[in-house]
Amino acid sequence: MKKLINEREQFVSDMLSGLKYSDPKIEIIEGSVVVRKHRKESGVALVSGGGSGHEPAHAGYVAEGMLDAAVCGEVFTSPTPDKVLDAIKHVDNGDGVLLIVKNYAGDVMNFDMAKEMAEAAGHKVETVVVSDDISIENPEMRRGVAGTVLVHKYAGYLSDKKQSLPQIKGEVEKMMTSLFSIGMALHPCMVPTTGEYGFDLGDDEMEIGIGIHGEKGIYRQKAETVDKITDRLLNELFKYNDNKNLILMINGMGATPLSELYIVTKNVIEAMEDKGIRVTKLFVGDYMTALDMQGFSLTVLSHDDHIVSALNAPTESTHF
Amino acid sequence: MKKLINEREQFVSDMLSGLKYSDPKIEIIEGSVVVRKHRKESGVALVSGGGSGHEPAHAGYVAEGMLDAAVCGEVFTSPTPDKVLDAIKHVDNGDGVLLIVKNYAGDVMNFDMAKEMAEAAGHKVETVVVSDDISIENPEMRRGVAGTVLVHKYAGYLSDKKQSLPQIKGEVEKMMTSLFSIGMALHPCMVPTTGEYGFDLGDDEMEIGIGIHGEKGIYRQKAETVDKITDRLLNELFKYNDNKNLILMINGMGATPLSELYIVTKNVIEAMEDKGIRVTKLFVGDYMTALDMQGFSLTVLSHDDHIVSALNAPTESTHF
Repeated sequence: MKKLINEREQFVSDMLSGLKYSDPKIEIIEGSVVVRKHRKESGVALVSGGGSGHEPAHAGYVAEGMLDAAVCGEVFTSPTPDKVLDAIKHVDNGDGVLLIVKNYAGDVMNFDMAKEMAEAAGHKVETVVVSDDISIENPEMRRGVAGTVLVHKYAGYLSDKKQSLPQIKGEVEKMMTSLFSIGMALHPCMVPTTGEYGFDLGDDEMEIGIGIHGEKGIYRQKAETVDKITDRLLNELFKYNDNKNLILMINGMGATPLSELYIVTKNVIEAMEDKGIRVTKLFVGDYMTALDMQGFSLTVLSHDDHIVSALNAPTESTHF
Repeated sequence: MKKLINEREQFVSDMLSGLKYSDPKIEIIEGSVVVRKHRKESGVALVSGGGSGHEPAHAGYVAEGMLDAAVCGEVFTSPTPDKVLDAIKHVDNGDGVLLIVKNYAGDVMNFDMAKEMAEAAGHKVETVVVSDDISIENPEMRRGVAGTVLVHKYAGYLSDKKQSLPQIKGEVEKMMTSLFSIGMALHPCMVPTTGEYGFDLGDDEMEIGIGIHGEKGIYRQKAETVDKITDRLLNELFKYNDNKNLILMINGMGATPLSELYIVTKNVIEAMEDKGIRVTKLFVGDYMTALDMQGFSLTVLSHDDHIVSALNAPTESTHF
């Protein structure tokens, strides 16, 4: 295994130390909970998190205009309920706390346990579960992937506008009804703690419908030119969202060079234009990664003026 | 070769099309010259560029506060003089044009030819040549690498402050006397036009002192933990710059996950602290890449209050 690391066991703690040096506006409490140095004095506080390995998600979005805390588990491993509880206690200013959780059994269970403990201690807490990954057909099993970052931003905006906890939960849940993603990989990621790849791919193969934890896709295929790949992914997405005005995120999986993401962008935008679809807001970059996976995901969301304003509103996160 | 591309020959043109969709504030003239849609009405215009494959450099820095134009050659291939001339003619508002050129024979020659042609047409043009890569001992042969991006930003600031062409050239040349970089790779990059790697590395090897065009390094070594790697690079840099207050850039080579860049950051900062060196301004991210190379470079620059103000000044580039 060749990686820029020291001891495997230090991966997350070393990574968080480096993050802290690079962003003087955050601090780390309880070893693995990233919070803003200047706590919000009013407004619903937003807590997200999950396993590490998705950088800049989620810690890179702890910033004015987005999250108040990110609870960082070990690589691809849910954080424990006590850490989530630490986050809730730290950020709650009395206006309540919204937990933004990606739909994985471990995350949902641990954030739920933390919610119960926090409620017992007198905190108002609500949860939204993001499940935008259409590569899983059963809606209840759908995983939360890159669309989660748009949820962070929208909820951050609503909180800054002083919407109440139930209002924000309601708005976000409405938004999520049109939020769908699908991803692909040319190369799997290697998990640093094991030195193993999540799956193996031949030199001429690609994987469609991958997850962000090294999970295999829904099918494997001979590698194709990018125009064919983007058509495959778009055809799946259009089964779920046939809106003619879309917000679009083109997300690198961690080791995809920006040049190739731009080539993807060209093909996606032109394929959409051919179908009469207008992209009203476009994001291109690494937002929700899977360590050093090579590939990308597409996320679509139905256009809404209010949501676009929210996504365009300033944030101090340098990653959004 | 597995890459997210269509025809190899379309790599740069597809990439630029995608860039244009992602940044509504730029436009592309003459096929490969990226310029701001709203031209600067006064102030020295800044033109950079070179071979493609270093994204976001240089086109991603065409924005208010940084460059006025980036001339994009084919992958790792200098743009032709006529394209550089097109850029000069487009951006010159009468206050003159500064060419920011990385020190490669082809770039220096082609930008020089363009300068002569532009001068013959009545434009005031000056050149600064960036040669920050200490992995080449002979100063005249030193290559321009990630430090070039700091030059873009500093010159952009000086231009916005309405400094004259000779003033900016003088300030930038003074700054460059303390600007040094060195890089390493765990994995070479594959050039899309040839499908070949620039060099081959064993499963347990790393390369120290690599260039940004797939050039081999100055030596090869068994892969090590990141603390040892950063010590190696810092020891080289400190031979050239022993200032106790440094501006520092930790630059990913294109396929290095952010998590690993943060681990590098932790080790570099702590090694510097041990030597009594204070980092007064820190950059972590992909600034000057080599396609899908895995690795990183370190750039140091002596602290100067004025330069730090310049680097902190706003820019509309989302990549700085």
